[in-house]
Amino acid sequence: MANKDRIMQDIETLRRITQPCACGTQRPSYTPEYRQGVDYVRQRMAEYGLVPREDNAGNLYGRLEGSCPDAPILLSGSHLDSVKCSGAYDGIAGVVCALEAARMIAESGRPLRHPLEVMGTIGEEGTRFQRALIGSRLVQGSWGEAELDSVTGIEDGLTLRETMRAYGLPGNVEGVCRKNDRIKAFLELHAEQGPILENEGISIGIVETIVGIAWLHITVHGLASHPGTIPMSIRQDACSAACHLISAVTDYARVRYDGQATVTTGKMEVFPGNINCIPSECTFTVDIRTCKEEYRQDLIRYVKEQAAMIEREFRVTMDIALAQDQKPVPMNRRLTGLIEQACSRLGYSSKRMSSGAGHDAMIFARMWPTAMVFLQSHKGLTHHPDEQIPDVELAKGADVLYQMFRALDEEADG
Amino acid sequence: MANKDRIMQDIETLRRITQPCACGTQRPSYTPEYRQGVDYVRQRMAEYGLVPREDNAGNLYGRLEGSCPDAPILLSGSHLDSVKCSGAYDGIAGVVCALEAARMIAESGRPLRHPLEVMGTIGEEGTRFQRALIGSRLVQGSWGEAELDSVTGIEDGLTLRETMRAYGLPGNVEGVCRKNDRIKAFLELHAEQGPILENEGISIGIVETIVGIAWLHITVHGLASHPGTIPMSIRQDACSAACHLISAVTDYARVRYDGQATVTTGKMEVFPGNINCIPSECTFTVDIRTCKEEYRQDLIRYVKEQAAMIEREFRVTMDIALAQDQKPVPMNRRLTGLIEQACSRLGYSSKRMSSGAGHDAMIFARMWPTAMVFLQSHKGLTHHPDEQIPDVELAKGADVLYQMFRALDEEADG
Repeated sequence: MANKDRIMQDIETLRRITQPCACGTQRPSYTPEYRQGVDYVRQRMAEYGLVPREDNAGNLYGRLEGSCPDAPILLSGSHLDSVKCSGAYDGIAGVVCALEAARMIAESGRPLRHPLEVMGTIGEEGTRFQRALIGSRLVQGSWGEAELDSVTGIEDGLTLRETMRAYGLPGNVEGVCRKNDRIKAFLELHAEQGPILENEGISIGIVETIVGIAWLHITVHGLASHPGTIPMSIRQDACSAACHLISAVTDYARVRYDGQATVTTGKMEVFPGNINCIPSECTFTVDIRTCKEEYRQDLIRYVKEQAAMIEREFRVTMDIALAQDQKPVPMNRRLTGLIEQACSRLGYSSKRMSSGAGHDAMIFARMWPTAMVFLQSHKGLTHHPDEQIPDVELAKGADVLYQMFRALDEEADG
Repeated sequence: MANKDRIMQDIETLRRITQPCACGTQRPSYTPEYRQGVDYVRQRMAEYGLVPREDNAGNLYGRLEGSCPDAPILLSGSHLDSVKCSGAYDGIAGVVCALEAARMIAESGRPLRHPLEVMGTIGEEGTRFQRALIGSRLVQGSWGEAELDSVTGIEDGLTLRETMRAYGLPGNVEGVCRKNDRIKAFLELHAEQGPILENEGISIGIVETIVGIAWLHITVHGLASHPGTIPMSIRQDACSAACHLISAVTDYARVRYDGQATVTTGKMEVFPGNINCIPSECTFTVDIRTCKEEYRQDLIRYVKEQAAMIEREFRVTMDIALAQDQKPVPMNRRLTGLIEQACSRLGYSSKRMSSGAGHDAMIFARMWPTAMVFLQSHKGLTHHPDEQIPDVELAKGADVLYQMFRALDEEADG
């Protein structure tokens, strides 16, 4: 069985490899601290007989050779970067649990037939650049040389290529794309980032679908005026109109799609922003997530329908821009079935569920059989210094990955 | 009758006396540009036989001596300062129309028995300091030496006393307070700052009451989390909760008190403010204005009642602080009746209404018989470069002031 102390040693070591920050751990991609984290993982890989390799994008691989080196590869991992003031588990848990499962294989004396690669992707979080999932998109090949020049840093304005070079990489994508490689399966273990598993006392979440996402950027145009002189019925109050739209849409999602879809306004600004001025303008975002494409379409439709009604009622105009428009991504059914069997064999409780967050698995699922294993997030906390997966649950996660490697290794290759 | 060209010459001259700014006119108190504006008005006063005097607060008076110098004073005016990027009418109109009415008296060959003073107050707008109505509060005596040290500039941090000294004043309040002076009436002419007069085609608004105001500062405490992983029914979304409260309160005011009370959220901030994060905190303001103290109390009660319901429904907590708590101020009934008679005599349409904004008249009403005359604001625009009172309406306003001076002059003194 997996060794929880060994896993926790990796988690705690990586927790301490951080940029100076107000709280928690902060290890954005392509920084000296990120390099230090990669060096630590690389060293642990080597200790256990995995051959480390960094690709030109900065993704880290550790390969445990199989007895049939030409057999398709078993690939497992997650990302090594973090958001600002983050916790120590998001992404990292998937790398160190895959590493623990690889160690278990290496120490078992029963090598796999298939090569096993543990992967730590770079740039999964959207912390440093406008865009997320950078490492996996380059591996997939949907991004290439063009994006190295077009994607720029949020704070420093440097292109991705300049950033890669400053980090010590050659500044091209040579050898990064693996769409022509034979990959038998990609397995990503990750914190649930929600409270469901802990609340229900279940150890393993088996992801069936990664949510589809829609991001709407909405601007309400009203008319600034004095708050005491314009009667309520004829004012053009951009803030009140925006609040009515946000209330209507969150109510609709809560009543009609609770547990099935989410609607969130995370960002909202009111102009000119004086206590004694009716706002002339209000900008806000709407984040829609659901596993059912029909729900996603219905929610986008509902936002637009309500906006049109509120425009008339509140004498304002609204601009709605669809900034992200991503359909749900199903995981591989054969793999989710195998995970369920592995849990059952190990005696670990499991539950089929969806992922409300995007992951590298979402990208890889477009080219390889892909599945995700979720572990409990204590109190559902995520992107928070106090995020935590209990150590016994981490060990269970590594056990499931180990069982999956064995099960896939015993299967005939298609 | 009043000369509209003479009024417009003053308006247009003062429009051009401005700090450099993005648009419109900007003449904050105690600046070189404010001094230049005062110098222009002072010169116009002298031209028409008024004796100009600046008090230690920076308020400007121009006195037209009466045939009975000991009779109580007829006082009329408004403020000479402006908000940033403002128009040319707010405040100024009340000074130049009173000046025009004084000129008409001076030119008539029939001097008043009572002394007439035209007044331009300083610091009425809250542009430069945290507080508004500075000149009138010092005249009233509710502010004194203490406030000269405690009130500080928003941008430069200087105390009011330091600011006065830098402007060339002695830096004390000696002689400013006039609560022991015999003032027969204070009349303030002002732009309506709303669209009612123009919409209804009425020339003169007769203010019966200046609204009571309540300012609520509300903070909603929720729990930050991932937008896709927390079901709608169990999340603690500070922004959605705030929007529900703002919607409920503005709906209540719109349905129950339309034309009688206003509720405005002018300022709103959402933390941490990421598109992909359920907000942990949302702060916003609620500005309540109404002429009926019972409505004001009912609206404050309704905000608190709804907040308590939304706290439970959305699993958040709300802090509500009452930052301003000001009862409605009635104008003098005898004076409003006289204004109505003056309009009727002149053949100008008039309408009794309330003032949704605060004015110097609100301060002076606590010690002297006080009334306000409103003129049309084109499109209801105010605190805006395009604010405008049509020139013919300005002339009508000066005519009403002239008639009032004559009517009050003929009355026996109490």
